[in-house]
Amino acid sequence: MKARFGRRYMFSASHRLHSDGLSADENRATYGKCNNPHGHGHNYGLEVLISGEVDAETGMVVNMVAVDEAVQTKILERFDHAHLNRDPIFVNQVPTTENLCKAIFDLLDASFGSARLRLVRVEETENNFFECFSTER
Amino acid sequence: MKARFGRRYMFSASHRLHSDGLSADENRATYGKCNNPHGHGHNYGLEVLISGEVDAETGMVVNMVAVDEAVQTKILERFDHAHLNRDPIFVNQVPTTENLCKAIFDLLDASFGSARLRLVRVEETENNFFECFSTER
Amino acid sequence: MKARFGRRYMFSASHRLHSDGLSADENRATYGKCNNPHGHGHNYGLEVLISGEVDAETGMVVNMVAVDEAVQTKILERFDHAHLNRDPIFVNQVPTTENLCKAIFDLLDASFGSARLRLVRVEETENNFFECFSTER
Amino acid sequence: MKARFGRRYMFSASHRLHSDGLSADENRATYGKCNNPHGHGHNYGLEVLISGEVDAETGMVVNMVAVDEAVQTKILERFDHAHLNRDPIFVNQVPTTENLCKAIFDLLDASFGSARLRLVRVEETENNFFECFSTER
Amino acid sequence: MKARFGRRYMFSASHRLHSDGLSADENRATYGKCNNPHGHGHNYGLEVLISGEVDAETGMVVNMVAVDEAVQTKILERFDHAHLNRDPIFVNQVPTTENLCKAIFDLLDASFGSARLRLVRVEETENNFFECFSTER
Amino acid sequence: MKARFGRRYMFSASHRLHSDGLSADENRATYGKCNNPHGHGHNYGLEVLISGEVDAETGMVVNMVAVDEAVQTKILERFDHAHLNRDPIFVNQVPTTENLCKAIFDLLDASFGSARLRLVRVEETENNFFECFSTER
Repeated sequence: MKARFGRRYMFSASHRLHSDGLSADENRATYGKCNNPHGHGHNYGLEVLISGEVDAETGMVVNMVAVDEAVQTKILERFDHAHLNRDPIFVNQVPTTENLCKAIFDLLDASFGSARLRLVRVEETENNFFECFSTER
Repeated sequence: MKARFGRRYMFSASHRLHSDGLSADENRATYGKCNNPHGHGHNYGLEVLISGEVDAETGMVVNMVAVDEAVQTKILERFDHAHLNRDPIFVNQVPTTENLCKAIFDLLDASFGSARLRLVRVEETENNFFECFSTER
Repeated sequence: MKARFGRRYMFSASHRLHSDGLSADENRATYGKCNNPHGHGHNYGLEVLISGEVDAETGMVVNMVAVDEAVQTKILERFDHAHLNRDPIFVNQVPTTENLCKAIFDLLDASFGSARLRLVRVEETENNFFECFSTER
Repeated sequence: MKARFGRRYMFSASHRLHSDGLSADENRATYGKCNNPHGHGHNYGLEVLISGEVDAETGMVVNMVAVDEAVQTKILERFDHAHLNRDPIFVNQVPTTENLCKAIFDLLDASFGSARLRLVRVEETENNFFECFSTER
Repeated sequence: MKARFGRRYMFSASHRLHSDGLSADENRATYGKCNNPHGHGHNYGLEVLISGEVDAETGMVVNMVAVDEAVQTKILERFDHAHLNRDPIFVNQVPTTENLCKAIFDLLDASFGSARLRLVRVEETENNFFECFSTER
Repeated sequence: MKARFGRRYMFSASHRLHSDGLSADENRATYGKCNNPHGHGHNYGLEVLISGEVDAETGMVVNMVAVDEAVQTKILERFDHAHLNRDPIFVNQVPTTENLCKAIFDLLDASFGSARLRLVRVEETENNFFECFSTER
């Protein structure tokens, strides 16, 4: 039997979807109102899923305090109350939630000792979300 | 790293659980109050999960507008504010949420270009749900 | 300081919105797809709000077990997994959620001893709801 | 017995909290990270509560289609996927959610015929919200 | 037009419902399994509702940071991860959620300057809650 | 195409995280306020996920009534309104939610005839959860 630990966070940010490789018309056709020039924002729901053995002594997969600290310093301090397009990660790629999700996976990967990050889920609104996961899942 | 896009919808419908191959007593024993003669209804929550490559230019797995259009024309216009037992799909099978979930998967499959429908989830109430998924997941 | 106790329930039912005093066209114009001939259904969320003094001995406004029993026998057994249009209450009035909410208020009123029913809320979907309340609130 | 109809909507917008009448230090002390220069954003939950008589013929307080149309044209088309600070309403006042809530109340008031707008609630995150309501409530 | 600010918190605690003024049988009849000798626990949802004028300069009813600090020091540090029966407040009264709600109202009242605490809501489970409010509401 | 049935339950319990193999300081460092001597509690959300063939006659993966009965007798009667540390399962292991999740999986496994228990999810709060699942998933 395998075990996973999941934890949810929230951050508020703004972004504008616009690709430099597309014309103004193509941008509008691709992104619709998400291409509005002054941007808009979301409360992003973030969920991380970490798998591992349950330690026989502590009864834990991973210590929640350590997970909170990693997410706080690497993700929330960077993206909460920020404008995503201003982040170096999004200089050369559009800040879609797919790309944001991948970026968060990369920033958090290998942060949890012997436990493994398996899945990152970012909810853009209550009706759509994105997930990135390692293939060995 | 793989990526998935998920999207949620809602529709309201009524149904009655009754199998022609079972006696009245067997129907009552199998379906309980769901076998009540005049039917009942639900707000069905629908979630579709689509996987694929994140396009380097657009930063998207699949365009949400295209997903919304497919679900609107193939699913919501058909099942929202409908009586499921009246639908041709349920002439020869009971409109359980398992069968509804499978029907929705079949109706939506191959609707998303190079991206693949991986999972359909139908929530019958806030306390029970059903999922169908492709085996290559 | 005043105190109130609130309790949530859920029931699944079907209905069709159709007024005998309106023409077919007027019905369609008024109720839209809610006028579809074979009906549709919802998971109705029900919330009751009861006010009163906090009993010094028990520390309760009203015993939750008694509230559950009143709601179970007077409301849930009647409306759960039912077709609302078949209920005697809706022979002479349309089973809109407004009318359902008023009916539930009347059925439950004066069921809670010295504590008073103050408000009944019925959620038809997660995005719309109706409330009836006593004027002395 | 009185009746109320409630309806929920959602829109995504960005804003920056900054008062021209305060110094840079005062702005930072007052608004914290909400004063970040490039702004941030939210999914705003919007709830309107409308009271009135239940019409004996239609069984409705107000027709939901009319409410949706008023909110769509007066609120969602204006604020969804917008940067609030760019809206004329916020030229002379800070786009706090208090002020946004008041603005929405004023924009919607008197839009519902004989039914009355009683309360507007704006949820900035899942953990904080603001309400404006008419005094005759 | 009046304005209110609402804010949600969560804390986890345990309690046992048992009144010294009742016999063992009466306690069991009154509280059911909530009278189990070793206690049980809940994630309590806490909502505070504060009303006041919207400040013309800051656009705020009350500064959220100040509210968070009052709730953190007076409520969360006291009740989070605690056994309620051990708290001095519950030496002479049963730790029902009604009494907990009243205690929280008293502990927070007059903490918000010119803004007024109007309502405290404590959710014991997702299906029941309690509210205390000032009569001038 | 495969199908799964999911069902949600809730129970309220208390626990204290404390490992006999650790010193008082180590316990405090490992568990923080979860190590508070008198314990605390949660509303635990429980979700079970069961996979199988959809029966051609009944249209069901498994009868929900049978699932409810198994969960009621084996899990809810045991853990609802209980102090987890008093349960024989937790004499030799810490009642972390990881261990609780594994215990529930073992107690329910092989309870559903030809349908298979695939995953047990226990939500400790709305922001963290644990999952155990069979490797053949």
